[in-house]
Amino acid sequence: MKLNCDLGESYGMWQLGQDELVMPHIDMANIACGFHAGDPHIINKTLALAKQHNTMVGAHPSYPDTLGFGRRSMKCSQAEIIDLMLYQIAALDGMAQSQGLTLSYVKPHGALYNDMMADSQVFTAILHAMQQYYRPLKLMILAGSNAQKYQNTAQEFGVELLLEAFADRRYTESGSLTPRSQSGAVLDKVATLAQVKTLISSGQVVTDTGKAINLDADTICVHGDNVEAVNLVKEIKDLCQEAICQETICR
Amino acid sequence: MKLNCDLGESYGMWQLGQDELVMPHIDMANIACGFHAGDPHIINKTLALAKQHNTMVGAHPSYPDTLGFGRRSMKCSQAEIIDLMLYQIAALDGMAQSQGLTLSYVKPHGALYNDMMADSQVFTAILHAMQQYYRPLKLMILAGSNAQKYQNTAQEFGVELLLEAFADRRYTESGSLTPRSQSGAVLDKVATLAQVKTLISSGQVVTDTGKAINLDADTICVHGDNVEAVNLVKEIKDLCQEAICQETICR
Amino acid sequence: MKLNCDLGESYGMWQLGQDELVMPHIDMANIACGFHAGDPHIINKTLALAKQHNTMVGAHPSYPDTLGFGRRSMKCSQAEIIDLMLYQIAALDGMAQSQGLTLSYVKPHGALYNDMMADSQVFTAILHAMQQYYRPLKLMILAGSNAQKYQNTAQEFGVELLLEAFADRRYTESGSLTPRSQSGAVLDKVATLAQVKTLISSGQVVTDTGKAINLDADTICVHGDNVEAVNLVKEIKDLCQEAICQETICR
Amino acid sequence: MKLNCDLGESYGMWQLGQDELVMPHIDMANIACGFHAGDPHIINKTLALAKQHNTMVGAHPSYPDTLGFGRRSMKCSQAEIIDLMLYQIAALDGMAQSQGLTLSYVKPHGALYNDMMADSQVFTAILHAMQQYYRPLKLMILAGSNAQKYQNTAQEFGVELLLEAFADRRYTESGSLTPRSQSGAVLDKVATLAQVKTLISSGQVVTDTGKAINLDADTICVHGDNVEAVNLVKEIKDLCQEAICQETICR
Repeated sequence: MKLNCDLGESYGMWQLGQDELVMPHIDMANIACGFHAGDPHIINKTLALAKQHNTMVGAHPSYPDTLGFGRRSMKCSQAEIIDLMLYQIAALDGMAQSQGLTLSYVKPHGALYNDMMADSQVFTAILHAMQQYYRPLKLMILAGSNAQKYQNTAQEFGVELLLEAFADRRYTESGSLTPRSQSGAVLDKVATLAQVKTLISSGQVVTDTGKAINLDADTICVHGDNVEAVNLVKEIKDLCQEAICQETICR
Repeated sequence: MKLNCDLGESYGMWQLGQDELVMPHIDMANIACGFHAGDPHIINKTLALAKQHNTMVGAHPSYPDTLGFGRRSMKCSQAEIIDLMLYQIAALDGMAQSQGLTLSYVKPHGALYNDMMADSQVFTAILHAMQQYYRPLKLMILAGSNAQKYQNTAQEFGVELLLEAFADRRYTESGSLTPRSQSGAVLDKVATLAQVKTLISSGQVVTDTGKAINLDADTICVHGDNVEAVNLVKEIKDLCQEAICQETICR
Repeated sequence: MKLNCDLGESYGMWQLGQDELVMPHIDMANIACGFHAGDPHIINKTLALAKQHNTMVGAHPSYPDTLGFGRRSMKCSQAEIIDLMLYQIAALDGMAQSQGLTLSYVKPHGALYNDMMADSQVFTAILHAMQQYYRPLKLMILAGSNAQKYQNTAQEFGVELLLEAFADRRYTESGSLTPRSQSGAVLDKVATLAQVKTLISSGQVVTDTGKAINLDADTICVHGDNVEAVNLVKEIKDLCQEAICQETICR
Repeated sequence: MKLNCDLGESYGMWQLGQDELVMPHIDMANIACGFHAGDPHIINKTLALAKQHNTMVGAHPSYPDTLGFGRRSMKCSQAEIIDLMLYQIAALDGMAQSQGLTLSYVKPHGALYNDMMADSQVFTAILHAMQQYYRPLKLMILAGSNAQKYQNTAQEFGVELLLEAFADRRYTESGSLTPRSQSGAVLDKVATLAQVKTLISSGQVVTDTGKAINLDADTICVHGDNVEAVNLVKEIKDLCQEAICQETICR
């Protein structure tokens, strides 16, 4: 089970996140491409940090909305989405290659990610972009009970998916995230660690109704916003490594 | 002698230049990368147009100043210039490759171009970026009597230069452009065609003092701003093709 | 019946619209405030042009989306809308006052205008901004059979409305605009002039079903995009002046 | 002696500075106007904070360079500077008035401030803007031995100047700031407090050569970047209040 984290989300003078602290503990760095955060300098710095820690790098493209941090849904046409995806992926990929790194996947950011999951027009626009891009990259989407539906569509475009679970979000019986507006939607530290443990050991999560459901996931999304968040990432990482240890009977 | 032209300089709703009209008559399209003009959609459209006409494509990166169209000098550090070059080149290159095109050169835009010629700090920052980029691209600079100096520096970075002459600008005896503030700095149509003819046939230009000087140039910069400009490009193109014809004794 | 027109929609180097040609023929200039189009220089130039022709000036604020020309709906919170309205209105108002002009109204642009008409959250956010602004300005909205509903809400905020009709758009029996996706939604020149004539003389429009309905309007929206559009504005203006003439028995 | 501080320099999601902590201890808040930092929401929030603490508010306009935080000199024409000043001042002024506040002065930011002091073209462009603005505002510039020269020019435009000294910067005998590149250019805490004390009590500063020179200043610039900086501001404020106390023989 790999840990992925959004990084490179500073902008010009403005710092955001504890990239230096969290990078050693994650497996996949989703790097902002300059449309919701990041700028050429931040991108290059974040790539260098990923290289230093041998972390896999992915592009984290967004709607063009720095002021809104890519969190506001924008009614973009499919053509607009295809082109803004291509531009951001290309920029990050070429900069990664210039540091001797290989970009391996794409994870849309914020409102673009949510729209991708909720609106098939947006999802297929993103797949068109991935297909048009000159070399194959994987696309990260939200794990859930309806993942097969997305897999089928992605297969038509020849795009391989990565399914991500959230360490700190409660799931519903239908395998989607409990809306943030509901109490208990975001898990505390203890519950987060418990959820990760269950997910790793059994491939299941316990839903908001107390029922265990299967959740097929390739990666878990973690956060490096502050020191406390980074400490939690370390504990999640330890759980993942213990699990590997047990699987491989490492002692 | 190849003709190069700045293209893809529209932005969102705003149209600029007669790209469709001029593309068939030029050899090299300098495509704006989104920092002074161009946006993901315009870039993709311009690349498709270049592909259709089999035109060589180059990146046309700029200082980050859409409002000022990249024409205002900005005091950027070398590190800033390196990163903004890499980002823009990478974005254009990846989009070009996704259309089956090969980016072959870089021509800095506007104030960045002028600063590159006037300030060795800017020139070496640009060369650093070209060197760091993961595959070799040529760099287009202004032809002139001091070209050797730039060649020497570029060689240290392993970067090949392309020298461009201006069809419609008068030269001084020292081989630089007569400043626009002086009368006669910009040539009319007849004088432009005469200058191109002399340059092609003899590798010389007649300066503002009436003396002929050598001008070693690989390409001539032309403009596609409006229908009249495009018509002039056609005539310049005819001159170039006649010259090829004579060289190869084509009849 | 006053004619209003969107103006000042150039940006930096990029020209849009025939502001100089259309300004003499309109009564109200809706001036872009820099968020979808316009910049400090364009705004000042447009204000000077309005002053020269004694045209009433209004602010034409937008979602923050220059690349999309403010035509893409953005999911902004009410607080975000209030503040972006205040900023844009204040910028235009202060610049107008510095030219000895008085800003008299506000007409939201593009997607913000559409969202204002379709989503009461957006409409009330805009009214909050108008109420918070330090002096009273009128708000221009779409005329239609449900205008009274908007009037009632606006009254609670102490904001006076201006109702605008479209010269070149067909209306439905319910008093809304026939969607652009339907054939006949946009009127040709002859039908446009006929609609204006009917509206001025009788306060009615003939709908897409052929029925005449009342349409209470204070102003008609016209366009100055190109020379042809400007010529149509002149003819519409002539119709309006004839109407005034007849009302006042001017011969 | 009044304390002024740059505030409202967050942007969208990105936080910068300890505005809530420092606002209670300063007299004049220089509020970013959206061109180097600040956005409509941040501006409104910062104005509300100033109102709460009864702090005088000024506009802090900049070159249009969010990415570079307004710290990169840009070769703008005088016309460009005039219009970008007017836009930013107007935006801040109208928003301030909408909160019942009165904007009283303007302090250019970063590279625009430095260029204003170094280049008379920039200084007069700024004065033109102040003169064109529809109501009088004071302009804050750097105190120094050549202040009279600036005063004379400002007087021609009818603009009143405010002279600011820096608490934490060493001065040269000629009354300018010791360049940051020289050791000792930035004072430590103890030296800062000593300099403020001397300035308040005698109107003098001790230069880098150890000589005391007169420095006519209306205000001292302080910083609220972090908790430590804020603590220093409190101590400086205490020194100022003791001085007032002694002048007025308050016990």
